Amino acid sequence: MQQQAATAADEVDFVSGRTRLYGIVGDPIVQVRSPEMFSATFRRRGIEAIMVPLHVAPDAFEPTLRGLMALRNLDGLVFTIPYKVRAVPFASTLGAQAATVGAINALARDGTQWKGEIFDGLGCVEAFRRRGIALRGARLMVIGAGGAGSAVAVAIAHEQPAFVRVHDVDGARAEALAAKVARVSSDTQVEVAPPRIDDIDILLNVSPAGMLDDARLPLDVATLPPQLVVFDAIVKPERTPLIQLAESCGCTTVFGREMMRGQIDRMVDYFTGVDG
Amino acid sequence: MQQQAATAADEVDFVSGRTRLYGIVGDPIVQVRSPEMFSATFRRRGIEAIMVPLHVAPDAFEPTLRGLMALRNLDGLVFTIPYKVRAVPFASTLGAQAATVGAINALARDGTQWKGEIFDGLGCVEAFRRRGIALRGARLMVIGAGGAGSAVAVAIAHEQPAFVRVHDVDGARAEALAAKVARVSSDTQVEVAPPRIDDIDILLNVSPAGMLDDARLPLDVATLPPQLVVFDAIVKPERTPLIQLAESCGCTTVFGREMMRGQIDRMVDYFTGVDG
Repeated sequence: MQQQAATAADEVDFVSGRTRLYGIVGDPIVQVRSPEMFSATFRRRGIEAIMVPLHVAPDAFEPTLRGLMALRNLDGLVFTIPYKVRAVPFASTLGAQAATVGAINALARDGTQWKGEIFDGLGCVEAFRRRGIALRGARLMVIGAGGAGSAVAVAIAHEQPAFVRVHDVDGARAEALAAKVARVSSDTQVEVAPPRIDDIDILLNVSPAGMLDDARLPLDVATLPPQLVVFDAIVKPERTPLIQLAESCGCTTVFGREMMRGQIDRMVDYFTGVDG
Repeated sequence: MQQQAATAADEVDFVSGRTRLYGIVGDPIVQVRSPEMFSATFRRRGIEAIMVPLHVAPDAFEPTLRGLMALRNLDGLVFTIPYKVRAVPFASTLGAQAATVGAINALARDGTQWKGEIFDGLGCVEAFRRRGIALRGARLMVIGAGGAGSAVAVAIAHEQPAFVRVHDVDGARAEALAAKVARVSSDTQVEVAPPRIDDIDILLNVSPAGMLDDARLPLDVATLPPQLVVFDAIVKPERTPLIQLAESCGCTTVFGREMMRGQIDRMVDYFTGVDG
């Protein structure tokens, strides 16, 4: 008797028992774009792996993380809001950016241990480089001093901007970030102050204001000067209220998705050990 | 400035932040076929979900399970060797088959709780029904009395075979299964004895002998009578040493993959609450 051949409808080709797992950990999770973007990068590179969304509740973060890291076929995790700082203790070793920022967005299996690094800032710098927008000597307003905000500001500080104003709803967090920026780039003038853009070249929103159905702007303005460059780290929606306002005012806009693209290749290198 | 449009290579279409997760838990895991088969069924039914392999080590089973069940976007787990019995305590309620067998292969989110059931046996019975091979009145040899073996023997007992011989390397486990079969079908003659097929119509291997690179037969024979029907629950390889011997002897063969097909639709109903 013949074995019945499997038909195309019986099986998919994108996951099997051999697939290595990666996950993005966040709360909420539906807005993340890492699953489709990392999984595409794995496929393009011929890596038999997939990235899935992992919705972890704040009251279950630590035990859930331990459970995930015990999975023998899970090789790495990406962290998004609100876990970039809380994930740090799970790394046995920290990369240079993470050590300064005090947050990670990538945790990779490294032999019997796990290494952590943050790539948000490097991705943002890369997005500006690809656009040909100079950060060196520029005057910047950074809104948001959490994990992503810190990563962006620290990476930008390495580019030696002339001036960085930092704001966060948590004043102590803003002060801590300003100190880090000053440490990285001693020639940069740094201040902590509420959002103001009249003296600014580049506005960077790295706060959650405007994410998903949040209709808020990260700052209280009705218009923006057309020469302002506006970056929003949010990837969903792509056209945040801030980006929409910037477009209507004729500003140059840089998208969170560009930052993501800039960092995904670096992160896949990190996950797969290409960078050691 | 225009937003750069995402190209096809940038993203895949089979996973996103909205994807609901299912996992198959086992050790080893590379041989499982559930990821591609369940994921195909989800797609065919328009369910935005994926099944991924979850390689859980025996010394980490309980905490890892708790971590997985805490994921808010994980809706169900499938269990394979060696966890079908060990997973039972994680179910708040047990289905009828699971209650008799004392093992589960499906754990589904059910409101704030989790329900467990075993579908292996129902899938095997369905595979024989589709082939038109009668179980009622047949004389059977069942090798393997673990979770899958018990599920198969209990489901078959409901079909009222004339005779069931049970063997397992663990004699106590074989005795326990024989008692269950006798309880389900009082007219069936049941015995626990080493493998013998001279008085048998259907040989069922539900032990791991022959899985992956295991070259063993589940019983010590050089040939099989051509009128014997040979079922092997193993799905990888599809042509186990037993199936190869059966084919060379002209026996009718029934494959583990047919059992899987028979149960996957029922399990997806169970996971998605179609059956309540």
